[in-house]
Amino acid sequence: MIELGPNRYGKSGIRLVKVVRGEERHQVRDLTVSVALEGEFDAAHVEGDNSAVVATDTMKNTVYAFAREHLVGPVESFGLVLARHFAAFDQCESARVSIDEHRWVRMPTDDGEAPDAFLRSADFTRTATVTATSDGVAIEAGIRDLAVMKTGRSAFRGFPRDDYTTLPEADDRIMATMLSASWRYGEAVHGASFDELFDAIGETILDAFADHDSASVQASIWVVGRAVLERHPEVDEIRMTLPNLHHWLVDLSPFGQPNEGEIFVATREPFGLIEATVRRGE
Amino acid sequence: MIELGPNRYGKSGIRLVKVVRGEERHQVRDLTVSVALEGEFDAAHVEGDNSAVVATDTMKNTVYAFAREHLVGPVESFGLVLARHFAAFDQCESARVSIDEHRWVRMPTDDGEAPDAFLRSADFTRTATVTATSDGVAIEAGIRDLAVMKTGRSAFRGFPRDDYTTLPEADDRIMATMLSASWRYGEAVHGASFDELFDAIGETILDAFADHDSASVQASIWVVGRAVLERHPEVDEIRMTLPNLHHWLVDLSPFGQPNEGEIFVATREPFGLIEATVRRGE
Amino acid sequence: MIELGPNRYGKSGIRLVKVVRGEERHQVRDLTVSVALEGEFDAAHVEGDNSAVVATDTMKNTVYAFAREHLVGPVESFGLVLARHFAAFDQCESARVSIDEHRWVRMPTDDGEAPDAFLRSADFTRTATVTATSDGVAIEAGIRDLAVMKTGRSAFRGFPRDDYTTLPEADDRIMATMLSASWRYGEAVHGASFDELFDAIGETILDAFADHDSASVQASIWVVGRAVLERHPEVDEIRMTLPNLHHWLVDLSPFGQPNEGEIFVATREPFGLIEATVRRGE
Amino acid sequence: MIELGPNRYGKSGIRLVKVVRGEERHQVRDLTVSVALEGEFDAAHVEGDNSAVVATDTMKNTVYAFAREHLVGPVESFGLVLARHFAAFDQCESARVSIDEHRWVRMPTDDGEAPDAFLRSADFTRTATVTATSDGVAIEAGIRDLAVMKTGRSAFRGFPRDDYTTLPEADDRIMATMLSASWRYGEAVHGASFDELFDAIGETILDAFADHDSASVQASIWVVGRAVLERHPEVDEIRMTLPNLHHWLVDLSPFGQPNEGEIFVATREPFGLIEATVRRGE
Repeated sequence: MIELGPNRYGKSGIRLVKVVRGEERHQVRDLTVSVALEGEFDAAHVEGDNSAVVATDTMKNTVYAFAREHLVGPVESFGLVLARHFAAFDQCESARVSIDEHRWVRMPTDDGEAPDAFLRSADFTRTATVTATSDGVAIEAGIRDLAVMKTGRSAFRGFPRDDYTTLPEADDRIMATMLSASWRYGEAVHGASFDELFDAIGETILDAFADHDSASVQASIWVVGRAVLERHPEVDEIRMTLPNLHHWLVDLSPFGQPNEGEIFVATREPFGLIEATVRRGE
Repeated sequence: MIELGPNRYGKSGIRLVKVVRGEERHQVRDLTVSVALEGEFDAAHVEGDNSAVVATDTMKNTVYAFAREHLVGPVESFGLVLARHFAAFDQCESARVSIDEHRWVRMPTDDGEAPDAFLRSADFTRTATVTATSDGVAIEAGIRDLAVMKTGRSAFRGFPRDDYTTLPEADDRIMATMLSASWRYGEAVHGASFDELFDAIGETILDAFADHDSASVQASIWVVGRAVLERHPEVDEIRMTLPNLHHWLVDLSPFGQPNEGEIFVATREPFGLIEATVRRGE
Repeated sequence: MIELGPNRYGKSGIRLVKVVRGEERHQVRDLTVSVALEGEFDAAHVEGDNSAVVATDTMKNTVYAFAREHLVGPVESFGLVLARHFAAFDQCESARVSIDEHRWVRMPTDDGEAPDAFLRSADFTRTATVTATSDGVAIEAGIRDLAVMKTGRSAFRGFPRDDYTTLPEADDRIMATMLSASWRYGEAVHGASFDELFDAIGETILDAFADHDSASVQASIWVVGRAVLERHPEVDEIRMTLPNLHHWLVDLSPFGQPNEGEIFVATREPFGLIEATVRRGE
Repeated sequence: MIELGPNRYGKSGIRLVKVVRGEERHQVRDLTVSVALEGEFDAAHVEGDNSAVVATDTMKNTVYAFAREHLVGPVESFGLVLARHFAAFDQCESARVSIDEHRWVRMPTDDGEAPDAFLRSADFTRTATVTATSDGVAIEAGIRDLAVMKTGRSAFRGFPRDDYTTLPEADDRIMATMLSASWRYGEAVHGASFDELFDAIGETILDAFADHDSASVQASIWVVGRAVLERHPEVDEIRMTLPNLHHWLVDLSPFGQPNEGEIFVATREPFGLIEATVRRGE
């Protein structure tokens, strides 16, 4: 027998900009929102019966219509309102709202900060995912594509050598990555400020990344993840993805030059890919 | 207590081109290979002990070294050899090898097909993923980013209307998508030719896509997935992801023109995103 | 004194899909159109006077409004109508219309070709640029991003060696590139079919690329360009851009294997970039 | 007669990272360098004679070999040394070196700035292009892909209306763009610090962008360009490219809500494209 397995649907790439025109100065919010629903959608697939299929166009309209009233604080809160709205449909077992926040900062001018001109701060994208089910809600926050580099205190030694191993041991190599991390808040988050938490966790990630001796990317993930859990009781679990963007020493000996950790070629392919979760255990 | 959760690591983006220089003509294979391992890697994370960490550089070397002898048939077979090699390490519980095949076809010339010049066929990427564990191997094959369009026989009617619904019912809309599909082979695949199967399944996908009246993207996924399972006993399950790339009718009435399903604006954002699995049940 | 120098403006990325619903089967056209104007626009810049500034939104509307009646043949003809329309504005000295055509082919099915389902043919993008001025029109056609590869008959020898040269001479190397070419039609094109010409010139490019011994990418550009001019009197000039996408032999000797032109790593960075024009002289 | 027209060649995408390991802290430079030569290369094309063709691999080696000694100050200075080196070849009439600088800033930690960990500052890319010929050198500096937005004081009125015009006049619209600018230094630059100049000109661009009432993107280009020339005698000419990334007001009236400049949809396609040069005249 042929049957429908897991399925979900929704709208992605909903681009939303909100301008709050205060008397003295404006504020701007810039989001990309995605909505995905799971639930009783078998008839839509198997019978072509759309009576339960909330149109993805309706999802888009809902996001825009809710933005005026509900996009007033952190993206996690906006995500919560949206996720609960969609999860309230009878046929929905789960509604997941994912938000990317593109941050704009006030433009510096000769007279101070501009009241109505902005500059995009592109160092990373702030992310939030809220999933609502009949059991409650799960809130995740994160950082995507934060390029970071350690030029010191990064080693890789003691790995096994087989017939295909040519990599020399390294005491001091460049470790460069595009860090993406996503952490799940637990019960302790209630009453907290999501914006303050985000900033504080971001600082912990940078501080831990900068301030440890790395034995490997795997070891660094653990150090950073453990620091987040140790310092932030609001966080139950953190998942991290770290591509290892290799920087290879250039052989300058044909040109009569030494190269002691000075001149590197940065590469994109191939890359190591290290993924791990650090969490609170029993 | 803070503990390490699920984790894996490997090498991605290993770009491999193999030229087979036959007497009369050449053949070219062009792959992007990724390797990911799961297993006993806790010490690497928590203690900085790399004694179990097969270097990702070693993985890369292995792929190149194996290509001469083992990349002689379908990518699924090459993936099998690689996955079994890595899974044989004591510390590995699971080795997954993912391969993208970029297809090159012989260049047409005035004298027929060129023996040593090629043209990339970019309509889609063929994919294969082989996962080896102590329990055996799982083989998946697939297609990625095949742009397809139905200009007729595509409707979307009977969906629920709430306060945020403005989308009119449509009897005839363009359905355009970048189809990605991945199917898992079952026991029946043994002895079959992976290349022939890939071609046949690809034909089934196109045939089913073209030859049905679509009530929704969800209904189309079901029709296509069911056709694959019905016609190909080798396949146990197929997962599909179909972004709904909206084509909106342009309002030409300000210019005194009708527009009955003729002139559309193609859009990239926002897009619907429909995902489903079709499988053999009990 | 500070003054305005060269300037132009327009609309880019106008995405236009036209469906022609024939009785037996549909046809689909898929274009990305850009319009750029030059002319008397100093007041717009210097004085903020928009009285001569045809809104780019108007350009977009014009493209859609013209598509019903005028997009019936080759893109060059559609570009001509549009370019002449914009050049007719008093303030315009030059109107340039650039069109990318994304080609869709009928979907193959068990019963032959589908009447209303299509598959995107992504091997290359067909391009056309029409520039209209008071002096007349210039028509260019082209191909963009056609990935091609020679696995034989490609050498690079006899180049100068200085203190920084380490590259060995090569008798047989892979030459791979993403070919982009743009050719300008002369007077002889009048009365010709742009579609037939495009197909024929494309065939010449492939035939010449496949069927020559390459001494360098520079030599190959000349061979291909000369062939186009020799075989197609309609063409006055052809410009080509060929990135040299290096394929390096993998050193398999650490694994006890030879590698005589068999296993390569394909790279994206850095790449050679070779550009040249071949034209009819006096 | 068929002849070779304008041509050039070189190496692009040379990725170079330099780490300067000071006693107390490291510094990191991250560049992408391109080299392009023009000159007497006819024989390479027409006769397949490579005796004048400096290999692009040699160019790459030269960039790395020069980096140890010569990459110690601003990228303009490094570009000068490289451009002069290549222009000194007899066959070269012109050597152009283009550099993108990817900026890394010290990672903030609980103890202040990290000595050996960095964070990429991705708001824009700093660019420099040095062209050396027998006549001397030309130095251009620039900014690429700086996303900026004005939420106030941006109008577009008084443009002509024809049969295809539907755009309403706007007193207050969002103006958003990815600003790219490139300015040419004149004689006055000698003795100046390229880094200080870059920072000062960047500040002028932001200040002028923020602090004017915009009548159009064209008017804004003029205002910004003129400010750069007025405040920086070292600059002879500035070219700017400003895509107009439209933000459209969402119609919330179906949901019973007003929308007075508050909720927008940000779009990528189509986009206006405004280009202009502002320069010192006679």
